Amino acid sequence: MTKHNPTACALIIGNEILSGRTQDVNLNYIATRLTEHGVQMAEARVIPDVEEVVVATLNECRAKYDYVFTTGGIGPTHDDITAECVAKAFGVPLIQHADARSILEEQFKARNIELNEARLRMANTPEGASLVENPVSGAPGFRMDNVFVLAGVPSIMKAMFESALSEIRGGKPIESRTVIAFLPEGTLAGPLRTLQGDYPDIDMGSYPFYKVGRYGSNLVLRGTDSGRLGEAVDRLVKMVGDLGGEPQLEA
Amino acid sequence: MTKHNPTACALIIGNEILSGRTQDVNLNYIATRLTEHGVQMAEARVIPDVEEVVVATLNECRAKYDYVFTTGGIGPTHDDITAECVAKAFGVPLIQHADARSILEEQFKARNIELNEARLRMANTPEGASLVENPVSGAPGFRMDNVFVLAGVPSIMKAMFESALSEIRGGKPIESRTVIAFLPEGTLAGPLRTLQGDYPDIDMGSYPFYKVGRYGSNLVLRGTDSGRLGEAVDRLVKMVGDLGGEPQLEA
Repeated sequence: MTKHNPTACALIIGNEILSGRTQDVNLNYIATRLTEHGVQMAEARVIPDVEEVVVATLNECRAKYDYVFTTGGIGPTHDDITAECVAKAFGVPLIQHADARSILEEQFKARNIELNEARLRMANTPEGASLVENPVSGAPGFRMDNVFVLAGVPSIMKAMFESALSEIRGGKPIESRTVIAFLPEGTLAGPLRTLQGDYPDIDMGSYPFYKVGRYGSNLVLRGTDSGRLGEAVDRLVKMVGDLGGEPQLEA
Repeated sequence: MTKHNPTACALIIGNEILSGRTQDVNLNYIATRLTEHGVQMAEARVIPDVEEVVVATLNECRAKYDYVFTTGGIGPTHDDITAECVAKAFGVPLIQHADARSILEEQFKARNIELNEARLRMANTPEGASLVENPVSGAPGFRMDNVFVLAGVPSIMKAMFESALSEIRGGKPIESRTVIAFLPEGTLAGPLRTLQGDYPDIDMGSYPFYKVGRYGSNLVLRGTDSGRLGEAVDRLVKMVGDLGGEPQLEA
């Protein structure tokens, strides 16, 4: 349905997600905002802080998708290896970015903190990268070709993502409508399959729930053509009503 | 550090995660439980309900890791395609599993609901699969070789995962200790890198925070050798104390 929309991939870099210590929330934010922007999130990967894995994954994904967003691994500590990995993936040297250094000098001077060697690592980018502004804590992210390198801390990641968004070519916004049906999925499945067959340009998903003693399903329709989407929703509402499923449109 | 531990990969299958509509919580559960069980989650991927993507990802990951866990796509509706994809990935036919059919017959009879064609799809497995019990809602998951196919609804996924756990060869439990340091990461980075160099068998991660007006970092140490881990924690606590970082051990 979204073959004319740009595609994107998110790489969530960090052992803390894979060990279960931390619940990732960055993927959901990026996915939501890209969808609003008409960019289709085609895949996401959670990978460890291991150089060869990060480099290989970057190279696979930047070739496959229009945009790649990475989160995590751009702080001052030894486990922050994303900038080095991006440089290796692109086959360019890692350099100290003059503007990034100026930003760090100003930031740490204002806080009266020494800009030591570890902190200076945050000014390193692959040669040829442009900076992504960080309005929260100063130390910038960067963009290298179609790869946007963002922080892992959610508040900072979000601010950086919003800074980057103006550089992203959006597509037709992907609209989503949800019809709540008080029917078990197995009852809806046959007619829903027929409806999907009639609207191959609309992506239809069924997500079951069980609340207050009743079985039901959230039926989610997504597409870029408002007219077609509205038509499919109307038919779905009628279909659910005919089955006695008390259809409700989610606000 | 965990080279002797079995490895695993999670495949989160579902457009609703990639569109941002739903925040995934299954990965965190699987990651946490596998870590406790001594299995190293090496990677996770979120992929769409698209047959060629699911089949290719399954084949890549089942060859690469000891275990693969999939979540989502095993309900009765047209967008539930995981069982077909697993059959294609293994090059075997999709069959109606006799025991799965019996379970469904019993379940729907008890609820006085017709076992229609759509619901019967939930009895389909690749030929040669064994069932994974679903104590929540009946319809089972299945195991095919090293691939465990679980539901997407979190409560059902968890129950299925626990059913499957007895079949998973665990490794030495991966222990984790966290030292809270009230110091900015840039101050800790140098000494922490030295400590990591002395303990290559311990995985050390630094996760910054800013709370109640103070900068700090959660320093997470992970390893399978309690003695070595305890030694590294002791050194870290001393290091943080010497830097004036008021070290605290997280309970």
